[in-house]
Amino acid sequence: MNNKPTIHDIAKALGIDSSTVSRALNDSPRVTRATKDKILAKAEELGYQRNMLASNLRKNITNTIGVVVPRISRHFFSSAIQGIEETAYLAGYNVIICQSLEQLEREKKIVGGLLANRVDGLLISVSMETMNYDHLEALKNSNIPLIFFDRHCDIPGFSNVLIDDFKGGYDATQHLISKGCKHIAHFSGPQELEIYKNRFEGYKAALKRNNLTFKEEYVISSRLMEQDGYISMRKLLAKKLPIDAVFCANDLSAIGAMKHTKELQIKIPDAIAFVGFSNEPVSSVIEPSLTTIDQSGFEIGKIASELMLKQILTKETPQKGQTILIDTHLIERNSSKK
Amino acid sequence: MNNKPTIHDIAKALGIDSSTVSRALNDSPRVTRATKDKILAKAEELGYQRNMLASNLRKNITNTIGVVVPRISRHFFSSAIQGIEETAYLAGYNVIICQSLEQLEREKKIVGGLLANRVDGLLISVSMETMNYDHLEALKNSNIPLIFFDRHCDIPGFSNVLIDDFKGGYDATQHLISKGCKHIAHFSGPQELEIYKNRFEGYKAALKRNNLTFKEEYVISSRLMEQDGYISMRKLLAKKLPIDAVFCANDLSAIGAMKHTKELQIKIPDAIAFVGFSNEPVSSVIEPSLTTIDQSGFEIGKIASELMLKQILTKETPQKGQTILIDTHLIERNSSKK
Repeated sequence: MNNKPTIHDIAKALGIDSSTVSRALNDSPRVTRATKDKILAKAEELGYQRNMLASNLRKNITNTIGVVVPRISRHFFSSAIQGIEETAYLAGYNVIICQSLEQLEREKKIVGGLLANRVDGLLISVSMETMNYDHLEALKNSNIPLIFFDRHCDIPGFSNVLIDDFKGGYDATQHLISKGCKHIAHFSGPQELEIYKNRFEGYKAALKRNNLTFKEEYVISSRLMEQDGYISMRKLLAKKLPIDAVFCANDLSAIGAMKHTKELQIKIPDAIAFVGFSNEPVSSVIEPSLTTIDQSGFEIGKIASELMLKQILTKETPQKGQTILIDTHLIERNSSKK
Repeated sequence: MNNKPTIHDIAKALGIDSSTVSRALNDSPRVTRATKDKILAKAEELGYQRNMLASNLRKNITNTIGVVVPRISRHFFSSAIQGIEETAYLAGYNVIICQSLEQLEREKKIVGGLLANRVDGLLISVSMETMNYDHLEALKNSNIPLIFFDRHCDIPGFSNVLIDDFKGGYDATQHLISKGCKHIAHFSGPQELEIYKNRFEGYKAALKRNNLTFKEEYVISSRLMEQDGYISMRKLLAKKLPIDAVFCANDLSAIGAMKHTKELQIKIPDAIAFVGFSNEPVSSVIEPSLTTIDQSGFEIGKIASELMLKQILTKETPQKGQTILIDTHLIERNSSKK
């Protein structure tokens, strides 16, 4: 494979410099017509094939934005990526995507790899394990802008584009209360993640606003996969507490919880009502359909991407960082329709 | 932000070369102990902070595999990526993902960008518009291996990891025939894509094997989004042909087709039975649940990734390219249960 003639072979055969050959093949004005002809004739004689790829490589300006998300398979993240791409593509930027699969070790490797690949900026939504921020704080000393979207770390100086999770949690809980529910449980995610902390705070605020007492035993935390929701529901029912509703911090765990509830022939929503969070496509299709909080992934992605392009193009990172909050809204479906 | 002292400030203050300062800070043996001490003292005096990031960049070996898919939001592709990552990660490789969104122009830009980012290998499933292969054939002259998975281009020399789409199409049609269906329509994708051509061929082969006549008017091609299935079903019914089943080349179009069928109060599966292709998660959840062909995305990804690592590590690309076919299997659900 490496027996193909190179520009060095042409240079050697003609007793001239490789850079002259390269210039001639690129039709540079710095080489005379006569020399060009001589070089082209020799190139043809030796069967030289121009490596278009290498030539493209040299010309190519990367113009790439790196995106790191926990999982591309989640509807919210694939929508956010769609929003990022739409905006970036119009500005002439490619988007490369990596998933941490909720693991800090992977996230570190990915961030290191993307920087080595010389992306122009980094948009990240951190993993559930990201409680150590060293790999992200390191970017402060670089000229590569970093912006968090959805799941962020509380590092001063970086900008964030976030869902108003507090309001989402508040609305979900308020909705259940308006349906007459008085014993509302909450399935939460890791409290180290701001988004789950804020949804939880919204839940507590709505209870308080309605003079309902918050009780710790009504809260179960997990990693919020479907199976976690199933297990959390079993744990919750085993407590033998009065319970008429569950607000789950995501749709998947709500689906798992409803599965267990249906298996026990407990009526949804009459005996126990459910509200999820995220509006995954499956939430409108399952039986009963799931009331949920819609968060526009596409809009978040679009805004985060616009902010990123601004930072890349002006080469200005705001000293203090800015935080943009995106509104949510509740979609009422059958899991809470009383 | 840019007032921080750099190695150039240290060099200037000491009247020595920046490269010597850099070497000293990297503890190079090429700088004497005395000079190192002098430089470190000056660095401290000026409040110099080493840019760990830049230093990491220099040391970092990329070890990256680029993956290009039409859409990350499709279950099949996100599963395939999962399979690719699992294998690549264990071998110490990062995976960066790009989506073409079914557009040839984007695919070209993405491939160019990934090569400029110097990935070690490229795994690609092409867009519906990819009928011109120039951007991929260019890789032949490079030493960056390219492997197709699922949707491939027929370019000699590259390897492919493919679903046995012919068998999948055959099994889907045979299943409907075994249920007593005799007038089976087919919703197909762009025929320039091998996968849809092969599913179509499988459909025709099963009809033939059962002495059923193939009729062109029973076939409608589209881009197979949910909306396309809805419209194709309307077109099909407008033809006033006898019809008792539809084999759709993907699940989304089957879901759209069933939606229209249900709106017209036509009984599924009694009047018209449906079979899809891909086993998207939603296909088990909709009413009635959809019979479909399961293609293990994870397995395809894993095998494609293993083949890629072999080519990267041995630096050997098989001259002729090899094609690995992955088996499919039918999952019977209510849309065809008679």
